[in-house]
Amino acid sequence: MQFLSDNAARVHPRVWAAMQAADASDTPYDTDRLSRSLDEAFKALFGRDCAALWVGTGTSANCLAIATMVEPHGGVVCHREAHIESDEGGAPGFFLHGAKLLLADGYGAKLTVSGIEAVLGGITRGVHQVQAHAIALTQASEYGLVYGPAELVAIGALAREHKLGLHVDGARFANAVAHLGCTPAEAAGPVDTLAFGFTKNGAMDADAIVLFDPAKADLARWRRKRAGHLHSKGRFLAAQILALLEGDLWLDLARHANAAAAEIAGAAGDRLRFAPQANELFVRLDPDERAALRAQGFAFYDWDEATIRLVTSWDTREEHATTLARAIVAL
Amino acid sequence: MQFLSDNAARVHPRVWAAMQAADASDTPYDTDRLSRSLDEAFKALFGRDCAALWVGTGTSANCLAIATMVEPHGGVVCHREAHIESDEGGAPGFFLHGAKLLLADGYGAKLTVSGIEAVLGGITRGVHQVQAHAIALTQASEYGLVYGPAELVAIGALAREHKLGLHVDGARFANAVAHLGCTPAEAAGPVDTLAFGFTKNGAMDADAIVLFDPAKADLARWRRKRAGHLHSKGRFLAAQILALLEGDLWLDLARHANAAAAEIAGAAGDRLRFAPQANELFVRLDPDERAALRAQGFAFYDWDEATIRLVTSWDTREEHATTLARAIVAL
Amino acid sequence: MQFLSDNAARVHPRVWAAMQAADASDTPYDTDRLSRSLDEAFKALFGRDCAALWVGTGTSANCLAIATMVEPHGGVVCHREAHIESDEGGAPGFFLHGAKLLLADGYGAKLTVSGIEAVLGGITRGVHQVQAHAIALTQASEYGLVYGPAELVAIGALAREHKLGLHVDGARFANAVAHLGCTPAEAAGPVDTLAFGFTKNGAMDADAIVLFDPAKADLARWRRKRAGHLHSKGRFLAAQILALLEGDLWLDLARHANAAAAEIAGAAGDRLRFAPQANELFVRLDPDERAALRAQGFAFYDWDEATIRLVTSWDTREEHATTLARAIVAL
Amino acid sequence: MQFLSDNAARVHPRVWAAMQAADASDTPYDTDRLSRSLDEAFKALFGRDCAALWVGTGTSANCLAIATMVEPHGGVVCHREAHIESDEGGAPGFFLHGAKLLLADGYGAKLTVSGIEAVLGGITRGVHQVQAHAIALTQASEYGLVYGPAELVAIGALAREHKLGLHVDGARFANAVAHLGCTPAEAAGPVDTLAFGFTKNGAMDADAIVLFDPAKADLARWRRKRAGHLHSKGRFLAAQILALLEGDLWLDLARHANAAAAEIAGAAGDRLRFAPQANELFVRLDPDERAALRAQGFAFYDWDEATIRLVTSWDTREEHATTLARAIVAL
Repeated sequence: MQFLSDNAARVHPRVWAAMQAADASDTPYDTDRLSRSLDEAFKALFGRDCAALWVGTGTSANCLAIATMVEPHGGVVCHREAHIESDEGGAPGFFLHGAKLLLADGYGAKLTVSGIEAVLGGITRGVHQVQAHAIALTQASEYGLVYGPAELVAIGALAREHKLGLHVDGARFANAVAHLGCTPAEAAGPVDTLAFGFTKNGAMDADAIVLFDPAKADLARWRRKRAGHLHSKGRFLAAQILALLEGDLWLDLARHANAAAAEIAGAAGDRLRFAPQANELFVRLDPDERAALRAQGFAFYDWDEATIRLVTSWDTREEHATTLARAIVAL
Repeated sequence: MQFLSDNAARVHPRVWAAMQAADASDTPYDTDRLSRSLDEAFKALFGRDCAALWVGTGTSANCLAIATMVEPHGGVVCHREAHIESDEGGAPGFFLHGAKLLLADGYGAKLTVSGIEAVLGGITRGVHQVQAHAIALTQASEYGLVYGPAELVAIGALAREHKLGLHVDGARFANAVAHLGCTPAEAAGPVDTLAFGFTKNGAMDADAIVLFDPAKADLARWRRKRAGHLHSKGRFLAAQILALLEGDLWLDLARHANAAAAEIAGAAGDRLRFAPQANELFVRLDPDERAALRAQGFAFYDWDEATIRLVTSWDTREEHATTLARAIVAL
Repeated sequence: MQFLSDNAARVHPRVWAAMQAADASDTPYDTDRLSRSLDEAFKALFGRDCAALWVGTGTSANCLAIATMVEPHGGVVCHREAHIESDEGGAPGFFLHGAKLLLADGYGAKLTVSGIEAVLGGITRGVHQVQAHAIALTQASEYGLVYGPAELVAIGALAREHKLGLHVDGARFANAVAHLGCTPAEAAGPVDTLAFGFTKNGAMDADAIVLFDPAKADLARWRRKRAGHLHSKGRFLAAQILALLEGDLWLDLARHANAAAAEIAGAAGDRLRFAPQANELFVRLDPDERAALRAQGFAFYDWDEATIRLVTSWDTREEHATTLARAIVAL
Repeated sequence: MQFLSDNAARVHPRVWAAMQAADASDTPYDTDRLSRSLDEAFKALFGRDCAALWVGTGTSANCLAIATMVEPHGGVVCHREAHIESDEGGAPGFFLHGAKLLLADGYGAKLTVSGIEAVLGGITRGVHQVQAHAIALTQASEYGLVYGPAELVAIGALAREHKLGLHVDGARFANAVAHLGCTPAEAAGPVDTLAFGFTKNGAMDADAIVLFDPAKADLARWRRKRAGHLHSKGRFLAAQILALLEGDLWLDLARHANAAAAEIAGAAGDRLRFAPQANELFVRLDPDERAALRAQGFAFYDWDEATIRLVTSWDTREEHATTLARAIVAL
């Protein structure tokens, strides 16, 4: 019973079917019919003009998107515990040619207007300091917390005021939308670039870079090729994304994952470190308790000395969630 | 009837089967059972110690491999028409942090000892010039020509003499091995790193970086993650590669592609610009002749004003090759 | 009466004389007689093997030195308030090709063994996190505090244990040596690379990169040229450094600066935020007090809302220090 | 009798005097009175709006200027024998984060419209190739040849047509102006950025980056600091430049150097490989002839097997030039 990671989940049958349907000869790279249809698919989803590119990993999606807004001598305001700061192996330093991550504080790995302002307010010494060029937040956050539309509007206004780009790392954007019950456009807020994750939510290896200023799309295309991320058989990546967009499958899958998390969260109660909103739970368990759960066949990561992380996914079986919920109650 | 690119070919059924067999929950990134078995698979294939990593594109395979040998202030001797020079969108400049490609001449996009020596001999002004750190050749070359084992040994000896690393871009390594009829080890020569291509030869999106100094493997692993090339469901890439290695499927597929090319080459005769060795043919055709072929349903790229490029692949149908051969004869 | 910065100080007469003596035709770049004598001069000073290169700025000295030890995918442990983190305009990101600064805590901008261990202990997730390649400390620190030899030995042992390089930013190394009353070798500790500052201490624009592993010197030379820091008339930079080394002029000048700071510190008493050790003082003054001092002709920078920074230098006139001391007492 | 390099020349007495006059306490970096006056000085010289920054080396001047126009994924069209390609130790790769130099042909290391068009015309494959972002030429060229105003206008028109920036490497711009007898503005042509060299022409270590789009000046300032090229006592660099601009001293010095070269050129006659225009001569001499000259005390570099390079400078003594002219005639 696997609660390690949504990266460990399977590929959805409709994604398999779409990939196989794409297995006819077509032109290489992103010149095929499916890749060329991505822009329209995301325009329809967000109800506004945009361009969309596939990539094979979330790290490249984030970094290529941010690189459209941040010059090498600039900086990106992000949370101290953001994935780009802590878990991408220094990829922003590589893709942004040494631009600096400027770290802000905030509860639950969420940025706040005041936290961002504290960072910006400390940049006063001209060329001796790195200047912010963009803000990057994670929707849902690294602790599974979700920004509401009003929070995004406020951060967006701050970004505009300071002429900063706004990027959303949406590795679990689907889970955020599912939680909020709003439109994708509302859940993204006044964003410039979005890394829309599909790999954790039923795809094999396909995430989308969505650029709400389509004039920036060519920049992302140059950089994608230059970073070795232009797959030669790109039709298979486009097929994965299109299959998940079709009939809002992506949203159904995220709702399933969130529901599984919610069931476990109900059992965890006061053990939860953060409100259960998306598909990640951080649960206080002592070593004996962890051992007890593992002895019953549950797999999960230790987060820190006091806490474990549980992640549900589109393919978490309901009986596994129920069994885990009961096991936690029984501890 | 498609002769545009081996990138336009389909995915082999045994690759599909292997990917689907991998679609059970396993640990993410490259910690799964399949990814962890790659080293052994390539040790068996090459009969010598090595480490192997999957990546999703040939460009990243080349650049990550070369980055294990070339520092940012160094240079890479390659052919003036090498893929890394002409067709990777400046990726070496990105992955190598501005290291320089040092361009050598040679017939058919093949490096020669004298061509390399001419480059090295021109580097005489100390810190004012970029120094070579490695040599990179393409097996088979951009014009479909193959290095014989003796040529590789000579270039390898030169590399050792000058303390340079030796990289082989093996996007079509399988076709070279098939042509030579030797072992993979002989076809790679005294190489340090090999980008072993599978995507053009039956895979969906999987190439291998083979490091014959396994001590360098960690370096490639750090850089792969940093470049956003560590897929979170890496088991699907490993599965593709293992399926093609199984029973030397990769070699059978390359032989098929080469045979199709040979049949067409036989018809093209003196129109060929280069000896037909692998699966690419460069055929002199005037505009009317090109139009005539296209009118019969053949798809191919113009190479230059006088020449077209024809590429066969593992899934080129025999009747297509035969039909094209006849059509060329009939021109 | 200027206490803004030791960068605002004049050039020492003996430095002028040495530069003018160098104004005869000689070979360009660093091939002249003076530049070639630097290695021996620093070997004599430190009593151990080393190589030394001039550069025109302290930022380039730090970054080029660290670049001999840190690969682009690595990291540098430094204090959260280190100059390389806060005041070099992102230069480490540029020179190190995106390598990451890993920030440690410690009183008075000084690293401690436990502070470094806390950073290293948090690096547990393999390729997903940036690994430390080196430690960089500042002697004297950004708050004018000095590492004693025992502290340096302890940090050096930690570096060796973790196979990390050790860099010392010695923009005010002279002031540290003057305070400690020990040898330069003891004040540098078991260091691999030292940026030995002269510009703040009587030179016009010359700092030295001292590499205690001379095998690394060529690496620094390649990178210096590549960064545009190989002056074409390098003899003038070498002349500045040699003039300051001659007869330990550098040490006399630092003693003078420290003495001026000590006199002011005696007057500041409990207003001091840190013990007075080198030539920087951080003094608590309210806005009225600052205005009062400025009205008397003293120039200095505000550090934060509660504190000003006073910097003395080799050319601080004794009567200026005395006058300032009295003015502070009189507040 | 030194004809090795204008980098080996002395510092002009008026430059010394200006530096010493600058040796009073002033604010650090480029906030001093002299540095702040550079913009106006160059506006007056060129009769058009511009901004100007000092740097300590010609390599940094070129690279920082070009970096205002070329993104990391772009390219710079330059001559195959341009200094930035051949003699700057790979600095463009560093400062431009891996952008590519796109090499054009042309007589005497001069770009031509047709040579540039040949490069641009070969860029046809979209993201698979590096796109040009700028053109860089050298005035005077690496072989001492000078672009006339009409040539510059034609290249400038081509640049505008293709939306490319235009940079002039003016390491010996003064010698070009002296040869042309036109205004500096005419000798620079419709340029965007100019690296105006002073170090080879009487300064110690000061060149100017002139940006004719002052809106780009901040970009150059951020990058200058980030590259460690913001000297802390910048007033000394500004003083050098201002002293040379004063009363057109720079032009007088260049005329002197050109005249010395012209005298020698008159003697060399058919031995010259290129027309004598600036202060560099390339003279065909066989080994015995070289030895004969060296035996008479002349110092110079061998250029290739058949040719030596002679460089005159502001401090070439007339009798040295005359003596050399006679010695060449006597060969």
